[in-house]
Amino acid sequence: MSLKLTILGCHSATPRTFAHPTSQYLEINNRSFLIDCGEGTQVQLRTYKIKFSKINHIFISHLHGDHFFGLVGLLSTFNLYNRENELHIFGPKGIKEIITLQLKLSKSWTKYPLLFHELEKTESELIFEDEKVIVKTIPLKHRVYTNGFLFQEKPPVYKHLNVKAIANYPEIEICHYHNIKKGLDFTCNDGTLIDNSLLTIPHNKPLSYAYCSDTAYHPDIVPIIKGADLLYHESTFLVDKQDLANTTMHSTAKEAAQIAQLANVKMLLLGHYSSRYKDINRFQKEAAAVFENSHLTEEGKVFHLKS
Amino acid sequence: MSLKLTILGCHSATPRTFAHPTSQYLEINNRSFLIDCGEGTQVQLRTYKIKFSKINHIFISHLHGDHFFGLVGLLSTFNLYNRENELHIFGPKGIKEIITLQLKLSKSWTKYPLLFHELEKTESELIFEDEKVIVKTIPLKHRVYTNGFLFQEKPPVYKHLNVKAIANYPEIEICHYHNIKKGLDFTCNDGTLIDNSLLTIPHNKPLSYAYCSDTAYHPDIVPIIKGADLLYHESTFLVDKQDLANTTMHSTAKEAAQIAQLANVKMLLLGHYSSRYKDINRFQKEAAAVFENSHLTEEGKVFHLKS
Repeated sequence: MSLKLTILGCHSATPRTFAHPTSQYLEINNRSFLIDCGEGTQVQLRTYKIKFSKINHIFISHLHGDHFFGLVGLLSTFNLYNRENELHIFGPKGIKEIITLQLKLSKSWTKYPLLFHELEKTESELIFEDEKVIVKTIPLKHRVYTNGFLFQEKPPVYKHLNVKAIANYPEIEICHYHNIKKGLDFTCNDGTLIDNSLLTIPHNKPLSYAYCSDTAYHPDIVPIIKGADLLYHESTFLVDKQDLANTTMHSTAKEAAQIAQLANVKMLLLGHYSSRYKDINRFQKEAAAVFENSHLTEEGKVFHLKS
Repeated sequence: MSLKLTILGCHSATPRTFAHPTSQYLEINNRSFLIDCGEGTQVQLRTYKIKFSKINHIFISHLHGDHFFGLVGLLSTFNLYNRENELHIFGPKGIKEIITLQLKLSKSWTKYPLLFHELEKTESELIFEDEKVIVKTIPLKHRVYTNGFLFQEKPPVYKHLNVKAIANYPEIEICHYHNIKKGLDFTCNDGTLIDNSLLTIPHNKPLSYAYCSDTAYHPDIVPIIKGADLLYHESTFLVDKQDLANTTMHSTAKEAAQIAQLANVKMLLLGHYSSRYKDINRFQKEAAAVFENSHLTEEGKVFHLKS
């Protein structure tokens, strides 16, 4: 199983020459997802050589500009490139109106099917599922309605045969392999039951990625993200600005680390840094004092997990 | 009199790493104007060290994304920077709804006064005037309602005194200077009239800049832009794609030059190049064959005119 996260932008608020607002590109179990889409995301996708054609699902956490102002431009570019595949947009109620109004007034309705999945629930819900991956919302606590997203690999439907082990049972012929791959035990002619686990190789553990931005410190999310392999949790401030974090409903690096610790995740990524901090290493230090496996997101950085 | 034009973006359609969509920053007679605002314009303003605080008037030609998708981000950034000054937006009807919907849904209404001047006339109209500059629309011919803009310096209200000439007339005392600066003639005690032109230095010729993008070849604009010191006329294509220019309602470099020639402007700038052309020098060559003083716009290039 495999999870690869490319950071396209990891700074808060205003785009600057070398500090793009939030966007991430996730490849998980052969599926590709774009998470948030601040202004300039389409250029960042090009910079990091991500094929536009791979993006069929876009998840928008909330309707603050630094998380979605790049969306309408990306959708227009898809159109110019004669995209034909369906595009699914998941985001807060209102996103459809924002996009369709602009497309309508520019008389440039997309030639490809554009499907909106507007979110308004305040409890975690399953919003995407296919044979490879499921995606659930993580209701967050911010100044506007906001969701994080939990991406989980599904275990493979078919197991790998343990060819060496099977060779010990001449009664098992090729025609039985399909059932064994499906997980069924094998019954010999003499009635002996051979447990499936003796005939197959256990699949690797499915991986999961929890994306949580923007949010105040909100331990209610812990049961949802429990045990995630990778957690991105916003850390707009350091503890020196705890008051500001509280009033703006953002988190400090310390709080991000506390959530990581409570949820017992494997690895924490920090981001959405306020531009007031010139040295972002301070975020890593503050978080690592609480949760050791804390890392900084930076533009172009790729986090690759395998199991 | 002085006119300084900085090119922030000059390519058509999709933003690329080093090819931003249309935006220009014009300084004319001590006034500053932003013209069009494609995605990434706020970053380009930073790249070329243009102070955000100088922008109080933004002119949007039409509601195709490559001319306005950067606007909402710029307005939001002004807010984050605690802007207090009024900001005036001139653009097609609908622009107010697009911007206000996004600000409403992101719960981030600007703290500074944001004033929309929506345009819907199909004849040239005066849309801005102060003591230094006037701005008129140039109705263009495109797939959606589109205006170019004609920026004209106003002659100074007060003339410069010709101190040497005045010294020849002892009767002219300091208390008379104000009327002479205003352009009045002087009457001596013996009734002789001294023409104002003998007592003042003629001011330099006011300059003008005509911005025309996007548009098909449209000679109707010629009377409006007649004699402009500087004309920017879009040239999305070369003559090899005349058919495409016709169907998409864009112009070729040759057509831009023909307009420049008909309007007897002093200098032509080309831009809005289609990404299909790798060598943009071809635009200059095609235009210069018709109108010699043709030049390419390029990102970061500054055109400075003085009179």
